[in-house]
Amino acid sequence: MKEQVKEITSRDVDFASWYTDVLKKADLVDYSSVKGSMIIRPYGYAIWENIMHLLDQEFKKTGHQNVQMPMFIPESLLNVEKEHVEGFAPEVAWVTHGGEEKLEERMCIRPTSEVLFCDHFKKIIKSYRDLPLLYNQWCTIVRWEKTTRPFLRSREILWQEGHTMHQTKEEAIEETLRMLKIYEEFQKKILALPVIVGKKTEKEKFAGAESTYTIEAMMYDGVALQNGTSHYFGQGFAKAFGIQFLTPDNQLEYPYQTSWGVTTRMIGAIIMTHGDDRGLILPPKIAPIKVHFIPIGNQEEVIHTLKDLKEELSSLGITSDMDLQEKTPGFKFAEAEVKGYPIRIELGPRDLEREVVTIVRRDTLEKIEVPIKEVVKVVPSLLEEIQQNLYNRALQRRNSMLYEASTYDEFQKIAKEQPGFIKINWCGSSACEDKIKEDTGLKSRCIVEEERADGDCVCCKKPGKYKIYFGKQY
Amino acid sequence: MKEQVKEITSRDVDFASWYTDVLKKADLVDYSSVKGSMIIRPYGYAIWENIMHLLDQEFKKTGHQNVQMPMFIPESLLNVEKEHVEGFAPEVAWVTHGGEEKLEERMCIRPTSEVLFCDHFKKIIKSYRDLPLLYNQWCTIVRWEKTTRPFLRSREILWQEGHTMHQTKEEAIEETLRMLKIYEEFQKKILALPVIVGKKTEKEKFAGAESTYTIEAMMYDGVALQNGTSHYFGQGFAKAFGIQFLTPDNQLEYPYQTSWGVTTRMIGAIIMTHGDDRGLILPPKIAPIKVHFIPIGNQEEVIHTLKDLKEELSSLGITSDMDLQEKTPGFKFAEAEVKGYPIRIELGPRDLEREVVTIVRRDTLEKIEVPIKEVVKVVPSLLEEIQQNLYNRALQRRNSMLYEASTYDEFQKIAKEQPGFIKINWCGSSACEDKIKEDTGLKSRCIVEEERADGDCVCCKKPGKYKIYFGKQY
Repeated sequence: MKEQVKEITSRDVDFASWYTDVLKKADLVDYSSVKGSMIIRPYGYAIWENIMHLLDQEFKKTGHQNVQMPMFIPESLLNVEKEHVEGFAPEVAWVTHGGEEKLEERMCIRPTSEVLFCDHFKKIIKSYRDLPLLYNQWCTIVRWEKTTRPFLRSREILWQEGHTMHQTKEEAIEETLRMLKIYEEFQKKILALPVIVGKKTEKEKFAGAESTYTIEAMMYDGVALQNGTSHYFGQGFAKAFGIQFLTPDNQLEYPYQTSWGVTTRMIGAIIMTHGDDRGLILPPKIAPIKVHFIPIGNQEEVIHTLKDLKEELSSLGITSDMDLQEKTPGFKFAEAEVKGYPIRIELGPRDLEREVVTIVRRDTLEKIEVPIKEVVKVVPSLLEEIQQNLYNRALQRRNSMLYEASTYDEFQKIAKEQPGFIKINWCGSSACEDKIKEDTGLKSRCIVEEERADGDCVCCKKPGKYKIYFGKQY
Repeated sequence: MKEQVKEITSRDVDFASWYTDVLKKADLVDYSSVKGSMIIRPYGYAIWENIMHLLDQEFKKTGHQNVQMPMFIPESLLNVEKEHVEGFAPEVAWVTHGGEEKLEERMCIRPTSEVLFCDHFKKIIKSYRDLPLLYNQWCTIVRWEKTTRPFLRSREILWQEGHTMHQTKEEAIEETLRMLKIYEEFQKKILALPVIVGKKTEKEKFAGAESTYTIEAMMYDGVALQNGTSHYFGQGFAKAFGIQFLTPDNQLEYPYQTSWGVTTRMIGAIIMTHGDDRGLILPPKIAPIKVHFIPIGNQEEVIHTLKDLKEELSSLGITSDMDLQEKTPGFKFAEAEVKGYPIRIELGPRDLEREVVTIVRRDTLEKIEVPIKEVVKVVPSLLEEIQQNLYNRALQRRNSMLYEASTYDEFQKIAKEQPGFIKINWCGSSACEDKIKEDTGLKSRCIVEEERADGDCVCCKKPGKYKIYFGKQY
């Protein structure tokens, strides 16, 4: 047991090494011979499958349809929208040869698919009857990052990208915010992440967007992880691509556009928010295996009893597995902790005589003795409790690292001494945003939507326009 | 109505144009600005989602786990297995630049992932306890085809690829055949395709495999579509990559490997097997929308009645939609036929008074008047009947184009005059296989497993070893 645990670096000693250790020990990923690309192993991919399944339901409920676009973008197509190409061209992978032949025009692998969707929209949008057009795609994108870390920043990214077109500006903005809300609720309720939502600054918004809304999660170490974005494009791409529709009163008009996406980065956020020095802790609602049975001694009768429990849980829709390896109980306990199963249930021959099992909560490591007959009653509510506790715990820690600064000195002092997010009054200028970044290394996270400035800009002392969060980012 | 129908070329006049017309008119795909890549539109992608969902269940039931490997293969990694690289290098897309920088080593986009899986297996396989390792991945691959046709042959292919490792040869061969059987059953029972299964010749087998099993479907025009393969690799890749495991008696041994895959090509097979001059015909078990309601005149009461029926069907798990466009009934009927919904249900005000609907089967275009009250009873069994009828009809047509030839003259005559597959006795030599291809343009489809040669090779007249099918292929 100790052997397993020893191999995980303490998260308070070296958070980066702790993260890497958990990734490996919990069998989530493996490194590959392909620089900057990871292998997502079965346990990690099962989490992604759950995410895809649950989000896809939400997308379909709100009227979106899945499609599949090409993965290649010819250079000339990428070049159609000016800001967009400037934002993405420096970080794309270029395909220059097919077999032995050099291509007439090189193509990049999609870093995002706005231009591909627009190219298609131009053909299929003719009248207001074709709107809104609500599409989504699950796929892989490529961005040629220099430094990579599994799930957080990699060259290949599994994600979904929604792309929609609307008759009016209001409708498109409504869609942008609707999808942001779906992301926010999903991350709070399913992933137990206490995220902050808001608007990106001009400087930080998506290349080609009029406005970008963001989901900002804070990791255990106080560092921000941008965990999903929703963009309102106005008519920018539509004009660049010449996409027009006939309005009900027979006018030609450019449609209003949105796009929105989340990635496997959310798995990184789960790990870095909930995990501890014993390994991964998965929120029950996203855990591929919610209950992990450990028969002590692998006796036939013990296994038989657990199999019955397993079946009863399964009939309630609660997934479980059983550890039948020929290993010591201690080894099995440690492994269950590394893997982060929300609940483990232990049963030995003596427990069986007394007709009880030991239930161990992964979040608190608390042990509860429960009569075998009551397991099926206890487990569902315990899973709820663990889910709620993980959220509350993360919220408490996140809140303990939220600061406000009213002077630049105070801002710089917090930035230097405390990890976390700092909220300030801001004039809205990129100059101040740049200066703050230069002086402190912090980047703007998001403009707070529901709160107005109540004082001068902390940086330049001109009248404040917004409340804004700054923080270090992954 | 006629307008829609007119735009589809008759399949007996020009099958290739018919296919393209159906693809476009049924909104399955769109062409893109990316040569050789297609856009899969919502209706087409919904078919693929059904295929993925159903097959994934079968894979999981048989113990397979999903993973995600990198999409890039560094050139040196592709080069590890000699036959494999010779087979694939001529048709891969090469990435040479990341952003502004030239890569030190170019990488291809995976044309298939054997080498990536082996690179990973080498790290995670240590003992017999790690075997069998049963992995699958849903992803996109790229093969730089010169001539492309949506679903049949494209540069980007959506598929699944299973990769497994076993302790013994027997176990690996068993797996190869198990997955072949799953494909066969799926295509027969769900896609209503009367496929032939067998072994590929040495010449036609997968680059690097010891043996390749194939699923051969025959399209309406008598041309073969290879619709899935399952490969047994022996220890070839394991030796090339140095993958070894410790046996129960502590010996180092190379594991035995398989891989198997099917692609969106199956959608092409559905279209080209079942469709007719009015458009697509979808087998009920794979159709995203099984029942299509058409209110005649869009009267409120009519729509209300159909909505009730829709809900009742939904509670039975039968998907449906309703055409509320402001179009003529004729237009709607034609569109329903183009889209290939298995059943359409029409209701007008006069029908409502008489409390009957008209049910139209897409396979036979037969119209049945059914009391409204009985619709929910009639539809499930009618869907079963349509499914069975589509299979039987395809089987009958397929069988009518199966030939046997006992002399080379006879073979050449059939090859020249009749589309379809020709079965012959064959000596097993590549020389005869090549000569047949040169003389007739036909390629070997598969060696028949359950039948032995009962005469001399039709080509060289030496003793026959196998019964084998030849046919033209897509």
